[in-house]
Amino acid sequence: MAVAVAQAGGFGFLAAGTDVRGLKAELRKARDLVQRTPIKGSDPDVLPIGVGFNNWGVDLTTALEAMKEQIPAAVWFFAPKRNKDLIEWTSKIRVSSSGRTKVWIQIGTVADAIEVAKTCSPDVLVVQGADAGGHGLVQGAGIVSLLPEVADALKEAEMGSIPLIAAGGIVEGRGTAACLALGASGVVMGTRFLASKEANIAKGYQDDVLRTRDGGLSTARTNVYDTLRGTTGWPGRYNGRGILNQSFWDAHNGKSTDENKRLYNEALQKGDEGWGEDGRLTAYAGSGVGLVKEVKSAHEIIEEVRGNALEVMSKISKAGSKL
Amino acid sequence: MAVAVAQAGGFGFLAAGTDVRGLKAELRKARDLVQRTPIKGSDPDVLPIGVGFNNWGVDLTTALEAMKEQIPAAVWFFAPKRNKDLIEWTSKIRVSSSGRTKVWIQIGTVADAIEVAKTCSPDVLVVQGADAGGHGLVQGAGIVSLLPEVADALKEAEMGSIPLIAAGGIVEGRGTAACLALGASGVVMGTRFLASKEANIAKGYQDDVLRTRDGGLSTARTNVYDTLRGTTGWPGRYNGRGILNQSFWDAHNGKSTDENKRLYNEALQKGDEGWGEDGRLTAYAGSGVGLVKEVKSAHEIIEEVRGNALEVMSKISKAGSKL
Repeated sequence: MAVAVAQAGGFGFLAAGTDVRGLKAELRKARDLVQRTPIKGSDPDVLPIGVGFNNWGVDLTTALEAMKEQIPAAVWFFAPKRNKDLIEWTSKIRVSSSGRTKVWIQIGTVADAIEVAKTCSPDVLVVQGADAGGHGLVQGAGIVSLLPEVADALKEAEMGSIPLIAAGGIVEGRGTAACLALGASGVVMGTRFLASKEANIAKGYQDDVLRTRDGGLSTARTNVYDTLRGTTGWPGRYNGRGILNQSFWDAHNGKSTDENKRLYNEALQKGDEGWGEDGRLTAYAGSGVGLVKEVKSAHEIIEEVRGNALEVMSKISKAGSKL
Repeated sequence: MAVAVAQAGGFGFLAAGTDVRGLKAELRKARDLVQRTPIKGSDPDVLPIGVGFNNWGVDLTTALEAMKEQIPAAVWFFAPKRNKDLIEWTSKIRVSSSGRTKVWIQIGTVADAIEVAKTCSPDVLVVQGADAGGHGLVQGAGIVSLLPEVADALKEAEMGSIPLIAAGGIVEGRGTAACLALGASGVVMGTRFLASKEANIAKGYQDDVLRTRDGGLSTARTNVYDTLRGTTGWPGRYNGRGILNQSFWDAHNGKSTDENKRLYNEALQKGDEGWGEDGRLTAYAGSGVGLVKEVKSAHEIIEEVRGNALEVMSKISKAGSKL
């Protein structure tokens, strides 16, 4: 997927998550894919994709070791136990890659943006709004307020040159154009790519994404899915936005965690049938999920989003010039 | 305030809220202001402002009676007990104003948008995202996802000609341009006008708005303020976004409602000193509050927002044309 995105002119990240034991093999696979269809203009010594980490759960030494053989063009740091843990991560990856791996850091508040900008001088700040799918801050603003406030605060602190990439609720051209208007240099999309041909997810999960409408009403930020899945190591200020299902409502209505877990494990046995509105398996997705209606290739998605964003920008500019 | 906004080329709403006993007098006052400084091009028989209602708590007969003498250019319906209550409201105000009062209806989900569009044929749909200050849906998406999904769903249902106005988290030019990119015909701002010279709010409240930064972290959607203030008639799916203060944290940490109310009432005696981070009085505000740093006149705000939005639109369009 990450390579397909790169080949379509985007920039894709491999999700290492918290478990980096398989990372070396994954990076070799990516290298093979890239060698088969090289990407124009990219440094042959650097793998033209990024690697994303949930830093709280990752062993730095293992991660660095995995990225020694194949140097990724970027890393994406997210959710450290404490912000200051990123100082060591940032400096070590810069040393080990001789500065060839760019450091992206994802934040969700103005305070975190200022702190990591000061202590880590990231190459990119990913600004994640509350509409994002999967993990993010329990408490935060949508991108419409967050991105401009982060931009202004960085400018005021004389760090306004760090590019900001918007995340959270962006699944198509209109959202992309909107984020550029807010001051972003670009956008990242997660939920949209769940419905891509290259997505390495269960069919049941993908069907859930395609089925779901009214994203604000059909998803919510919750800890329930972490509890059922046993992914409970996340720092306290994070939870995850997922599509509401029977697991969620049962927890909401007071069913015991033990019983809910038992039913979750039963649903696991059903495979793809375990997902759905009346299902129990987790489908993390952002509130933009209602706009995702069709599986397309990563290439098609990127072309469509870019084309539509340009169209929107030209249209509103024309409308504006008439005012 | 509503008249000042109209005179600056915007369109202002008088907040009738739930108590319409004083509405007739308020509308007369507005009429006097308009007569002193007439607004060019407006129908002399129609008051060039709107009136906003929290429909769940308003007696329709009293409201209609108040709007008979001075016919407002628009009404804004919000939070009925049931959506179908708006059918009677819409038809009666149209009859009583001979169609001169336009009907704006605020919604926060795709389902509600489709339902009220079908049953009421509103002149305008106000699409409220989760970043909005004050009351809104407990569960909903930010404007970045909500507006495009509402627009697409209306189009699919052949009701795509209803203008959509974006609300929630918009306090300045970037947010305005962003919402136009999302497909809105315009935006409404509440929080920004709390820090206007014309705002009829306590100085303590206004100071709180000016002081607050990091809007996603410093505000939250909650029922606590309604409980303390006794405004508990809101339908269950609504709560309000306000600046976090001691009342909020005490409730969060388990203080009894009785004790919290007692402290709230004590704070009421302090007047403006009762607000603030360590204060207890309610400051409803959207997550864009961190971008509001200065009190300006309604005229200055409107000019600035419009100017900045146009600048942003022209800038991103130029950047886009180079891609």
